[in-house]
Amino acid sequence: MKVVEVLHMNGGNGDISYANNSLVQRSVILMTKPITDQAISDLYCSLFPETLCIADLGCSSGANTFLVVSEIVKIVEKERKKHNLQSPEFYFHFNDLPGNDFNTIFRSLGEFEQELKKQNGEGLGPCFFSGVAGSFYTRLFPSKSLHFVHSSYSLMWLSQVPNLIEKNKGNIYMASTSPPSVIKAYYKQYEKDFSIFLKYRSEELMKGGKMVLTFLGRESKDPSSKECCYIWELLSMALNELVLEGLIEEEKVDSFNIPQYTPSQGEVKYIVDKEGSFIINKLETTRVHWNNASNNIENINNDGYNVSRCMRVVAEPLLVSQFDPKLIDLVFQKYEEIVSECMAKEKTEFINVTVSMTNKK
Amino acid sequence: MKVVEVLHMNGGNGDISYANNSLVQRSVILMTKPITDQAISDLYCSLFPETLCIADLGCSSGANTFLVVSEIVKIVEKERKKHNLQSPEFYFHFNDLPGNDFNTIFRSLGEFEQELKKQNGEGLGPCFFSGVAGSFYTRLFPSKSLHFVHSSYSLMWLSQVPNLIEKNKGNIYMASTSPPSVIKAYYKQYEKDFSIFLKYRSEELMKGGKMVLTFLGRESKDPSSKECCYIWELLSMALNELVLEGLIEEEKVDSFNIPQYTPSQGEVKYIVDKEGSFIINKLETTRVHWNNASNNIENINNDGYNVSRCMRVVAEPLLVSQFDPKLIDLVFQKYEEIVSECMAKEKTEFINVTVSMTNKK
Repeated sequence: MKVVEVLHMNGGNGDISYANNSLVQRSVILMTKPITDQAISDLYCSLFPETLCIADLGCSSGANTFLVVSEIVKIVEKERKKHNLQSPEFYFHFNDLPGNDFNTIFRSLGEFEQELKKQNGEGLGPCFFSGVAGSFYTRLFPSKSLHFVHSSYSLMWLSQVPNLIEKNKGNIYMASTSPPSVIKAYYKQYEKDFSIFLKYRSEELMKGGKMVLTFLGRESKDPSSKECCYIWELLSMALNELVLEGLIEEEKVDSFNIPQYTPSQGEVKYIVDKEGSFIINKLETTRVHWNNASNNIENINNDGYNVSRCMRVVAEPLLVSQFDPKLIDLVFQKYEEIVSECMAKEKTEFINVTVSMTNKK
Repeated sequence: MKVVEVLHMNGGNGDISYANNSLVQRSVILMTKPITDQAISDLYCSLFPETLCIADLGCSSGANTFLVVSEIVKIVEKERKKHNLQSPEFYFHFNDLPGNDFNTIFRSLGEFEQELKKQNGEGLGPCFFSGVAGSFYTRLFPSKSLHFVHSSYSLMWLSQVPNLIEKNKGNIYMASTSPPSVIKAYYKQYEKDFSIFLKYRSEELMKGGKMVLTFLGRESKDPSSKECCYIWELLSMALNELVLEGLIEEEKVDSFNIPQYTPSQGEVKYIVDKEGSFIINKLETTRVHWNNASNNIENINNDGYNVSRCMRVVAEPLLVSQFDPKLIDLVFQKYEEIVSECMAKEKTEFINVTVSMTNKK
């Protein structure tokens, strides 16, 4: 499986689109907003650029894509008014993998721009938008062309499934029952990917440019701890039930692994320092309850359903690359039952690691 | 009808997609290539930029989108080798209206980049690509951010259907039977649109930046002359046949007008000089036979079919905004018959006006 070709959030505006099932991601963007605000405000007031170039990496498509933009515009407008300056030109780049639904973004831009003008009033500078398709583990932008990079809930995705020397039997992700070599391979892939990411962004950002990244992360030192692996473990359980029912071959589950790694604060700091291009300004952990996935009033008491939806729009394209697409409904039906049961009994949370950095070079 | 919302070439890679029915446009790009080559080569050798920023406006989606890019890269590579320089970074912006199929462009980029590297060898600088959705009758890029603008077979599209004070009865475009006020309204809309286009591009291009534009145009002084209106007149005929058969209301044809204007060299020169931002370096007219629409060996002897396809991928989104979509197959069946008959009897050509300019400011 080539992650760059397979991974994308479900497109469009339909029932099981990412656009309509991404409230956890929304909560996280709002929760980490003070860090983004501070970084943008510091950046703007240190450079006062005529054109402010900003990239959102892993932007997906839907309301969250635009939420980041409107929050950034709001902060800059506040600052430039405080300094009695004209509004700059804003240049926003939306990046995601080529499988992302850019058409949907582009077709909503007109309405969004109207909304921006309404929110910010007459003096707002012109806003330009571009779509950039490609993996953020490659170079995406010309040298020294960006002031600010934002990425939320994207960088836990690895560039590839780690090369495993032992089978990760019965699991689709790191788990307490995974061999130590599996855990090590996952971490090594993450370290390699994140280091390359830092190197390329440092080339694209101007000197003094800033970057705010939020990962789905963990607090425990152990990468296979329940706090970060539970959501996938429950999906393994759903798949393994279908193995028992004879609908999926055991081998298919054994050889399927989710290309994701949820780092701790310590790991993020270690890799940023080791790579050397950035200074860390802030490093923070937050928590968001799984029930933030509840996205509409009808389903507010059906958290299992909502979490299952939330995970489906993320994982479906990966799953259909390995399993019979006709089984996906059934997989997520099982998953919903399992998730509901857990959420009734346990405190279930996502942990987020946010880091704010400045480019040294 | 809002042109910005309706106009786009048929998307995807299917049988009646623009991607598979745009050989006339391809011929025109290749025919006007010497002018583009000269402009790019002059531009590169006067500025030697480290990052070369290029926008293709009205890029559509398909092979033609990439043809322009690969021709430009080839010329720059030739020049920089001649001057013993490192290859620059290339930054290409693909622009079209929001209805364009950008997803298809983005999903073909990986393969195209491989092809570029193969064609140009090891030393080729990194190539970056972005999609920009919006009308070129608005600002699309930050100030002074571009070196070169290219646009082929797009600028004859107007920003809106001209406001007509008299009905253009029985016609869907300017015709010999159109009232003079209709012809005048069409020209006025063109002058207004093209002037705005020049103003905005001059703001976006750096001083000394260049622009090569090719219009579907005409040689005659009369904007309603057969040479430029014939292809639409034949479509009027097809629609009017359906009126006679009672399938389309006469009023619907009378109130439908194609938002296009095909200028003469003289008109282009007049408007460029009057607007004042650009110096014309070259202004040229070329001709391309309708049978350049023949795109595959099976249909090589079926020019009527090919021209009809070629027009359908362009006009279908406009037609379905006015007429019952279920009738479109029938319309183009009639159209094909009419076109075949004409091509058997007459010499049928498209006329192209190409202008190469330099930004003064």
